[in-house]
Amino acid sequence: MASVRVALLGCGVVGTEIARLLDEHADDLAARAGAPLELAGVAVRRLDRDRTATGIDPSLFTTDAAGLVSRDDVDLVIEVIGGIEPARTLIHTAMERGASVVTANKALLAEDGVGLHTAADKHGVDLYYEAAVAGAIPLLRPLRESLAGDRIQRVLGIVNGTTNYILDQMDSVGSGFAEALEEAQSLGYAEADPTADVEGYDAAAKAAILAGIAFHSPVGSGDVHREGIGDVTAADVASAKAMGSVVKLLAICELSDDATSVGVRVHPAMLPRTHPLAGVHGAYNAVFVEAEAAGQLMFYGPGAGGAPTAGAVLGDVVTAARNRVGASLGPRGSWYADRRTRPMGETVTRYHISLDVDDRPGVLAAVAAVFAEHGVSIETVRQRVEGHDDAELVVVTHSATDDALTATVDDLDGLDTVRAVLSVMRVEGE
Amino acid sequence: MASVRVALLGCGVVGTEIARLLDEHADDLAARAGAPLELAGVAVRRLDRDRTATGIDPSLFTTDAAGLVSRDDVDLVIEVIGGIEPARTLIHTAMERGASVVTANKALLAEDGVGLHTAADKHGVDLYYEAAVAGAIPLLRPLRESLAGDRIQRVLGIVNGTTNYILDQMDSVGSGFAEALEEAQSLGYAEADPTADVEGYDAAAKAAILAGIAFHSPVGSGDVHREGIGDVTAADVASAKAMGSVVKLLAICELSDDATSVGVRVHPAMLPRTHPLAGVHGAYNAVFVEAEAAGQLMFYGPGAGGAPTAGAVLGDVVTAARNRVGASLGPRGSWYADRRTRPMGETVTRYHISLDVDDRPGVLAAVAAVFAEHGVSIETVRQRVEGHDDAELVVVTHSATDDALTATVDDLDGLDTVRAVLSVMRVEGE
Repeated sequence: MASVRVALLGCGVVGTEIARLLDEHADDLAARAGAPLELAGVAVRRLDRDRTATGIDPSLFTTDAAGLVSRDDVDLVIEVIGGIEPARTLIHTAMERGASVVTANKALLAEDGVGLHTAADKHGVDLYYEAAVAGAIPLLRPLRESLAGDRIQRVLGIVNGTTNYILDQMDSVGSGFAEALEEAQSLGYAEADPTADVEGYDAAAKAAILAGIAFHSPVGSGDVHREGIGDVTAADVASAKAMGSVVKLLAICELSDDATSVGVRVHPAMLPRTHPLAGVHGAYNAVFVEAEAAGQLMFYGPGAGGAPTAGAVLGDVVTAARNRVGASLGPRGSWYADRRTRPMGETVTRYHISLDVDDRPGVLAAVAAVFAEHGVSIETVRQRVEGHDDAELVVVTHSATDDALTATVDDLDGLDTVRAVLSVMRVEGE
Repeated sequence: MASVRVALLGCGVVGTEIARLLDEHADDLAARAGAPLELAGVAVRRLDRDRTATGIDPSLFTTDAAGLVSRDDVDLVIEVIGGIEPARTLIHTAMERGASVVTANKALLAEDGVGLHTAADKHGVDLYYEAAVAGAIPLLRPLRESLAGDRIQRVLGIVNGTTNYILDQMDSVGSGFAEALEEAQSLGYAEADPTADVEGYDAAAKAAILAGIAFHSPVGSGDVHREGIGDVTAADVASAKAMGSVVKLLAICELSDDATSVGVRVHPAMLPRTHPLAGVHGAYNAVFVEAEAAGQLMFYGPGAGGAPTAGAVLGDVVTAARNRVGASLGPRGSWYADRRTRPMGETVTRYHISLDVDDRPGVLAAVAAVFAEHGVSIETVRQRVEGHDDAELVVVTHSATDDALTATVDDLDGLDTVRAVLSVMRVEGE
């Protein structure tokens, strides 16, 4: 093969960086792929912008993305447009025509990973998407290939840099959520509309992709229990601190003990400071994996950014190109296990509950009785007198189903002696 | 293909665990590889041991390893004997006959990685060895494939669990080297003859393998500058602590700024406690990677042990088996860059030097003059009066070549006012 011809869909921050690396590292990439990589075209939304600074040959730009992916001379399509459409249609067109696809599109993969993999299988092309989860961190390939001889039991990840930055600020500076969000926005770590990050949608898409690969079962965004960090207060963070923990937004993918079902959830949780994930600061990402043979592994690095994302995309491009040169294919989508997705209520977890209660005899007994009624065992109780007849009660439970814990909290809320349930947060990583 | 037939060379802790996982996870492995994996034979040194506990069919055992790898019905050979011979000859025989090879043999790969890869290329078979470096941590595949589109600039690794356990004990408990080594031995973290670990030979072999993959250039154990931890004292560890650092045995692989040469070294070094590697405790391993596009990545996990090593081997086995089923081959050995290995003297690094000096005027001036003479710039000097005319001087330098630093220390040693050079340690990670 003379060269591998590459079409680039999207020329924003990531796309521009990909084009730059393709050009600047051309010799290295050719040596690694076994053939030169040649940019065949770049699809953009509009042609009237000055793109001189990108250094890309102006004749390569086109607004006709559908035409570009249909071209016979394109071997490999890089999709960095994002979103569901037109990305999905363009990818399917490219695959039908026999081009391999590299994408960073987490939303699309979480929505229709099985459909995309099925199409790749059908048309005998590669589909890679390392950049879709945890940016530059090599994660999907290790999970899919390096751990192929092992049984992954649990994946615990900090996969959203924006929320980790906000929670890290709240922890280190003691600021409230609104203040930390504002700072994240001013530094460019959070977008003007921070919903996708703050409400956990971004992390949920990544969790779905991770769970599918880890457990060889189809998992979509809709299967993921999702709670954001909007309700995390400075008091929660301080309370975590008091018990040697830190609040993190975690993406958790778990195999049930009998290996028949998979639970996938995204929510803030308290994590002991001794846990390797507790030391992940700022906008960094990290994913902690527990596997039967390997034990505990962690992968750490920048979760976003133009250059890191472009680097991850290019790693996939080199692999796909090398496969093409060698007339072979990488590993296929693998959903053979087809495990049931467990509803959140069945998840076994632990709770940290703060209650505003009357400071009078019998309160603790009444509270404890509610836990006992639902079969929830208490690990620790801490009581702090607030006023002359006012106290705060902090209860940390042992493991129980989320249903039992939710029912317990509901009943606590109904107790006469409980003035308010101040906060409820899950406890992980022990 | 009906099944992929696997020969196992060696049946110690790792081999036994491999056989167990092959049997216990047979269905999962078959689904992932695309064909069942079948154990065709197990080569052991002697047949008169009771191996009932392994659960392996007794008829599979043989002492004729050469005969086993020569069998026509063996598709894949797993080598977990270790050492140079007979492992090398067995692997070559297997490859000549067309079998793919998975090995955990770091010594052999560091001695003759190029030879093994050349043979694999020649005979059109796969050669994988994820377990050879940092045990269970998926590291070589990410470096070789996920980062194939990037330029790796530096690899900084804790790749020997024994020495990390010892140094961690010295740091946390304040014990001396001998005492910490003894404890490591009693807990099974160090062998009766700890030379290979303590003197850095094990880490040097791993550093050579890492550097070869990271920089696409052949690097052997002999190219690695190696210093062990036998001379690290409780005072060194305390001195590191005083400046917010910790002593770690690091394997460091660096590309020169002009990308023409590679430096590879293993030695104890002081690392700031804020560095992600500083938090790697006990016998854990971690490898920190700096790449142009990806930025800073870290891979963390257990560096040794039967199950973790077996898991890593099986990941490779699944990949090699899948390639065989798909009639394809994984990535080849890649030494296209063929960069020069830089001698230690050219390495740019920093020194932490403790001197026992006379406590009288002019001493600091004399000492500073020696640094200036060699063009070594001083970052900090700390002086502590020890007796009525005795002082300790601690100097931390800015970056300079190792040659200049060594010459500086030699000249300091010759100064009248310097009673003794108490310790010299490199400073990394800033």
